[in-house]
Amino acid sequence: MFIHKKELLRPVRVVTPDPRWGEIILDQYAGADSEATALNTYLTQRYNTNIPAIRDLLTDIGTEEISHWEMVAELVRQHGCTVKMRDSRGSPWTSSYADVTGNIITDLYSDIAAELRARDLYLRLANMVEDPGSRDTLLFLGAREEAHAAAFARALEAIKGTLELPVEWFRHPYLNMSPGTYEAMRARSAPPPPPLTYPPSYPYPTAFEYPPR
Amino acid sequence: MFIHKKELLRPVRVVTPDPRWGEIILDQYAGADSEATALNTYLTQRYNTNIPAIRDLLTDIGTEEISHWEMVAELVRQHGCTVKMRDSRGSPWTSSYADVTGNIITDLYSDIAAELRARDLYLRLANMVEDPGSRDTLLFLGAREEAHAAAFARALEAIKGTLELPVEWFRHPYLNMSPGTYEAMRARSAPPPPPLTYPPSYPYPTAFEYPPR
Amino acid sequence: MFIHKKELLRPVRVVTPDPRWGEIILDQYAGADSEATALNTYLTQRYNTNIPAIRDLLTDIGTEEISHWEMVAELVRQHGCTVKMRDSRGSPWTSSYADVTGNIITDLYSDIAAELRARDLYLRLANMVEDPGSRDTLLFLGAREEAHAAAFARALEAIKGTLELPVEWFRHPYLNMSPGTYEAMRARSAPPPPPLTYPPSYPYPTAFEYPPR
Amino acid sequence: MFIHKKELLRPVRVVTPDPRWGEIILDQYAGADSEATALNTYLTQRYNTNIPAIRDLLTDIGTEEISHWEMVAELVRQHGCTVKMRDSRGSPWTSSYADVTGNIITDLYSDIAAELRARDLYLRLANMVEDPGSRDTLLFLGAREEAHAAAFARALEAIKGTLELPVEWFRHPYLNMSPGTYEAMRARSAPPPPPLTYPPSYPYPTAFEYPPR
Amino acid sequence: MFIHKKELLRPVRVVTPDPRWGEIILDQYAGADSEATALNTYLTQRYNTNIPAIRDLLTDIGTEEISHWEMVAELVRQHGCTVKMRDSRGSPWTSSYADVTGNIITDLYSDIAAELRARDLYLRLANMVEDPGSRDTLLFLGAREEAHAAAFARALEAIKGTLELPVEWFRHPYLNMSPGTYEAMRARSAPPPPPLTYPPSYPYPTAFEYPPR
Amino acid sequence: MFIHKKELLRPVRVVTPDPRWGEIILDQYAGADSEATALNTYLTQRYNTNIPAIRDLLTDIGTEEISHWEMVAELVRQHGCTVKMRDSRGSPWTSSYADVTGNIITDLYSDIAAELRARDLYLRLANMVEDPGSRDTLLFLGAREEAHAAAFARALEAIKGTLELPVEWFRHPYLNMSPGTYEAMRARSAPPPPPLTYPPSYPYPTAFEYPPR
Repeated sequence: MFIHKKELLRPVRVVTPDPRWGEIILDQYAGADSEATALNTYLTQRYNTNIPAIRDLLTDIGTEEISHWEMVAELVRQHGCTVKMRDSRGSPWTSSYADVTGNIITDLYSDIAAELRARDLYLRLANMVEDPGSRDTLLFLGAREEAHAAAFARALEAIKGTLELPVEWFRHPYLNMSPGTYEAMRARSAPPPPPLTYPPSYPYPTAFEYPPR
Repeated sequence: MFIHKKELLRPVRVVTPDPRWGEIILDQYAGADSEATALNTYLTQRYNTNIPAIRDLLTDIGTEEISHWEMVAELVRQHGCTVKMRDSRGSPWTSSYADVTGNIITDLYSDIAAELRARDLYLRLANMVEDPGSRDTLLFLGAREEAHAAAFARALEAIKGTLELPVEWFRHPYLNMSPGTYEAMRARSAPPPPPLTYPPSYPYPTAFEYPPR
Repeated sequence: MFIHKKELLRPVRVVTPDPRWGEIILDQYAGADSEATALNTYLTQRYNTNIPAIRDLLTDIGTEEISHWEMVAELVRQHGCTVKMRDSRGSPWTSSYADVTGNIITDLYSDIAAELRARDLYLRLANMVEDPGSRDTLLFLGAREEAHAAAFARALEAIKGTLELPVEWFRHPYLNMSPGTYEAMRARSAPPPPPLTYPPSYPYPTAFEYPPR
Repeated sequence: MFIHKKELLRPVRVVTPDPRWGEIILDQYAGADSEATALNTYLTQRYNTNIPAIRDLLTDIGTEEISHWEMVAELVRQHGCTVKMRDSRGSPWTSSYADVTGNIITDLYSDIAAELRARDLYLRLANMVEDPGSRDTLLFLGAREEAHAAAFARALEAIKGTLELPVEWFRHPYLNMSPGTYEAMRARSAPPPPPLTYPPSYPYPTAFEYPPR
Repeated sequence: MFIHKKELLRPVRVVTPDPRWGEIILDQYAGADSEATALNTYLTQRYNTNIPAIRDLLTDIGTEEISHWEMVAELVRQHGCTVKMRDSRGSPWTSSYADVTGNIITDLYSDIAAELRARDLYLRLANMVEDPGSRDTLLFLGAREEAHAAAFARALEAIKGTLELPVEWFRHPYLNMSPGTYEAMRARSAPPPPPLTYPPSYPYPTAFEYPPR
Repeated sequence: MFIHKKELLRPVRVVTPDPRWGEIILDQYAGADSEATALNTYLTQRYNTNIPAIRDLLTDIGTEEISHWEMVAELVRQHGCTVKMRDSRGSPWTSSYADVTGNIITDLYSDIAAELRARDLYLRLANMVEDPGSRDTLLFLGAREEAHAAAFARALEAIKGTLELPVEWFRHPYLNMSPGTYEAMRARSAPPPPPLTYPPSYPYPTAFEYPPR
């Protein structure tokens, strides 16, 4: 059961509203690495584990993400934009972004990655924005995602034994499907190719007859 | 800011678990007329209005919907299914389901329709399910959606003047783009058509030369 | 059965073509609140009602929307753009935009909302565009959507009894999931928060031990 | 401008309603190879060509497809299903199904393929369904798609010169990216592989050290 | 089975990096007419035919498209962008772009169209870009798509008899659903319409009473 | 540059074809945790890292995944189904499933999770299927995903320092957003709720006046 308190997790105060920034920040509201992805992922994952501490952790963090989602919306609103469930380029949010399985080990790996993606997105935006109020909110939220990544990592350790990949896994053969090295590849393509025209004069690398034999 | 309380809005107690029912109930978790649609719609709409009572209403109902979402997930879980953000047929949830504008009159109309859709889906499922525990939860949630529809209707009245469509709107001309009546149409097609074969013998209604003149 | 007449419902005449405007107007061709949404919604809804007058109304308006769709495409074309079933930001049209149930009361509420959304989008664009020809088309179409909203509202009245929410609905308890008021909330966050740095120095609102107790 | 006539292009008369068939037929209403795809494709493509006869052809066929769409919906309705813009498996229709470019040669190739896909789907369903009324409608519509494929092919011929791929295209080199033949491949894998267990005992084809050298 | 060779099918060498170009070129990486569409289409279609030469052809071209995909990614990377499976406007790639049936004739028509779409997109970009290195890659890839279109056309011829639409198809009646000509239509709308105002003064073309009779 | 060899990475030999199994296995061809997701993710991620060994690893594994994708398609084909880029429930594949950033640490966490998801899906199917040939292929592919998870984990270790979460992260405060424990919650809801009826008699947990104060 959820209760809303009429205060933000941390006050949001935009000093210089700029609708273009409001649009960009929609990425954190409903983009692939948004708070919407985080809250929907954790609040859904928690039903599929029997470990009470993990279920509790997912509930705590999932609930905090709803509060983050609210802060992001407030940021968008103060910048003068309509808040919509769309990312900055107009794509709708889809639950295809949310990785949910019945295997909690797997989910915790996904969750660490998701938090790191969200954090990096916050820090990138915080580095770009000039408005100090927006910067404050973005840094706060980025730091929280970092805290969540740490909490998930700690949870993985807490259920270790399971967490560490079993020794026999490392005995699987490795398949090198691509002989050679990238360094050699780059060296090889050093001289620029001769200019092409259209219709083509066909200096293509390898030519074969059709039908092939 | 949101707080989670470790109790459900109303206890959920499945008596006879049946994974097929769990799958069906996913429609209420992440289908087009699901709690996910409701919570995302209202909690997003509320930023785009300046009327405090409306914003408050959307927050209250949106928050209650998160608690409904939790009850639905619990129902799915107790039926023995993995909870995923997918509907009963596997389609992911998309924010294209959520109608959000900056015009609160418009949004309230959408919201009444959305609540009625959700209620009808709950009552339909409650009529079908045999498990009394599932039935209890579905009836409870259906009744709550009904209450929300009423609350949204009352809110529309509360901001009347604006709500009622202005008189001059009704002066727009009506365009009858389809002469005749459906009754006549049905009467006309009474005798069944003669059987067709393939390749066709072409008794098609209207034939023209190509190119047309 | 549909017949096409080789004239537009109202002539479209762009005076100053501007491909950027053509792109923007694609929102009315295949965006969430576009003519495509309108025509697909009404022409699909009409099969699910037994009330001949309503089915007739949906057919008339749905057919008119195909003619609107054609006018919008002509506008896009005259602005020098390729007409595609994409909105102005490149997102494809999806039938997730179309609200269709078997309950005509519900559908009429959705339809009023959909018409108001479409009208507002037309008026917003008409206020921005400078080309008088485009403005004429946008105003015409906006006025027609207004006429449709009125027609749907009249239809709701015509099947009243059913339309008015039953008295007992209003006896449902109201759940206040969010104590306090927004005014108080805004007053409270008046002093701007102290500036944050990264890595964070953690002046966060509420701190707890992990694991929680 | 479009006019609706209150008669179907050909009467639809289901003799033995079966909701499961109604669901399956939704594939023709809003699936990838549905009438919805056809009508949206042709009615959108026609704005992007300057050849009047082609534009006329696309308008005629596109308009006929709206009438087909109406027949399919009537079929679904008579089988006792709610008509929705979803395919038989619940996936929403998306304009990603509609191939539209500004190059009419390209579009005509797509259109022939689309008509053949639609026809094959109709004939497959007609072969399966037992209800003679449904069979009549499906055969009629399949035959019409065949007629459209022929009309598009004739249109391609009519703008020949352009249509035929220029001679120099055939001078492009052919790249055989896959040495050998499928016959040899199938022969080679004739003896069944030895049974595997889990955890694996690793009789994998090629093993390499990591990191690769 | 696929092997990667650490060289590009043709070297890619951007001379003047420009992230805006990198973004635009993403359309060829994961847009509707991208290499992703090509490779997924052909490599999936090939399982559904029993004709060894066609299966071989689809494998060869599909494999070459993976190598094209790699060249496009390298182009994006050298322009300084992160490579993502998104088109230039942020829409995710969807397999709804890939036309796959069990009918190889149909698929070959789609494939010719798809190659022409891809080629036209390459040539359009090549005409716009100033960087000679990008231009070289775009021209090379455009020419290859042309070669593929030719190969698919030749394959269609190779299985002729089947390919040519049977004579009886052309006996289907043609339905002229749109009387008149576009030339007449354009002439008719020559005088610009009188200017509209809002709220509207209703000089609409055709007015009817409601309810219609 | 990619080369196709006309042999499978491991022979596929279905003994008892069953189209229902073919449909189910489509989840591994184009579902959320499919080979399509794997190959598109790794082959796209590799452009965004400057560490040659990681780029090499992603190329090797991504290339192997194309070969897996081919094996899965062969399995579907031998079970008598048309191979389509759809999952078992008809949803199209979308690149929203592919997690790609410019931060390789983040990507490796996602990749481990993705491999574990794929492996679990293979093992679940292998446990269910009776056909020994299908079982062999599913076990082989599941074991390979396990090997990939191990390889990604090793790669994370290899770039340690960066990998281990910095000490200061763990100093972030933990926010307990949900007081109490799940054990208590479950104990509390032990007695089943009294049965509900419709229309409801309203024994709801908490009732408030509207408007709220």
